[in-house]
Amino acid sequence: MSAPLLDQLIAALRILPGVGPKSAQRMAYHVLERDRERAAELARLLAEAVEVIGRCESCRDFSQDPLCRVCQSSGRERSQLCVVESPADRLAIEQATGFRGLYFVLLGRLSPLDGIGPQELGLEHLGQRLAAGEISELIIATSATVEGEATAHYLAQLARRHGVQPSRLAQGLPLGGELEYVDRGTLSHAFGSRAEVPR
Amino acid sequence: MSAPLLDQLIAALRILPGVGPKSAQRMAYHVLERDRERAAELARLLAEAVEVIGRCESCRDFSQDPLCRVCQSSGRERSQLCVVESPADRLAIEQATGFRGLYFVLLGRLSPLDGIGPQELGLEHLGQRLAAGEISELIIATSATVEGEATAHYLAQLARRHGVQPSRLAQGLPLGGELEYVDRGTLSHAFGSRAEVPR
Repeated sequence: MSAPLLDQLIAALRILPGVGPKSAQRMAYHVLERDRERAAELARLLAEAVEVIGRCESCRDFSQDPLCRVCQSSGRERSQLCVVESPADRLAIEQATGFRGLYFVLLGRLSPLDGIGPQELGLEHLGQRLAAGEISELIIATSATVEGEATAHYLAQLARRHGVQPSRLAQGLPLGGELEYVDRGTLSHAFGSRAEVPR
Repeated sequence: MSAPLLDQLIAALRILPGVGPKSAQRMAYHVLERDRERAAELARLLAEAVEVIGRCESCRDFSQDPLCRVCQSSGRERSQLCVVESPADRLAIEQATGFRGLYFVLLGRLSPLDGIGPQELGLEHLGQRLAAGEISELIIATSATVEGEATAHYLAQLARRHGVQPSRLAQGLPLGGELEYVDRGTLSHAFGSRAEVPR
């Protein structure tokens, strides 16, 4: 109302995920009232990131260099390759586990109805890496959804075709989960896949 | 990890209110994956807003011109002045009510312990406007908090000193509120301020 530029800013903030009209308004007022310097810095970084950050040529993760830091690193185990759906998934694994191998980011999952096939996920490139013979284990860390499972199945076949051992993240009860509140599918799977208790 | 610029962007996004480390990360990944063009536009608007948007000389609301659109407008009732704490409060009143008068934005409330006195809230300027004689009613729309009430008390005295009628937003049960869930202070006030039912 009072400033067209302010209205435009509030509208533009809504491209951020989880930001509706009310919070966009709150964000705009907040930065204008309290933090203009850091807001200018945010604007600068956002413009630069959009311009500069591309994809790593080797793993398809975000990177401002042709090769991302993980792929560049000499300290990583090059015989293990972990396949994830998104950069966020890669980060989650990196933060939660002690995995020291390399990654491959699909940027999606197989979904023929949406026109997402092996080519869109860079699986040709993945096949070339598997054929190169450096990789001995392909750790498949796609989601435990229908599409994630289909993608995992495809990846496992691809790995075997190149003589590489595929593995899949374990499925079962989440740690700290109360049995009563676990969904039926998970419970049924965990029951069926029960393992002998070691002595 | 993979891109220092990306890390900087994620850190910078946290200046937005209500954005923690997880959602900052989600936002950065989201704009890089899906919406680079609109993100660049957001960066441009944010940089411009921080640079250009100042305060209206008359009402202290945000404005990119010396006078905001409401104060410039010839269609507003100049005898009623509504005092609010923040630009967001002004917008809320503008959207919820049919008020066609002018506003005055305090940008805070009296809080002597934090060093916020009448001068910080522009009350000298408000006094001059009240003295000019154009205003007949001062609608006090500060919060119903202790500091908001103290500010309202001060504003009412200021208005009376200049022969202007002060009024305050009604307090009581919120519309649609279940009596059972209304807080004790509100309930006690609403009970004590009960009004006769008109025939």
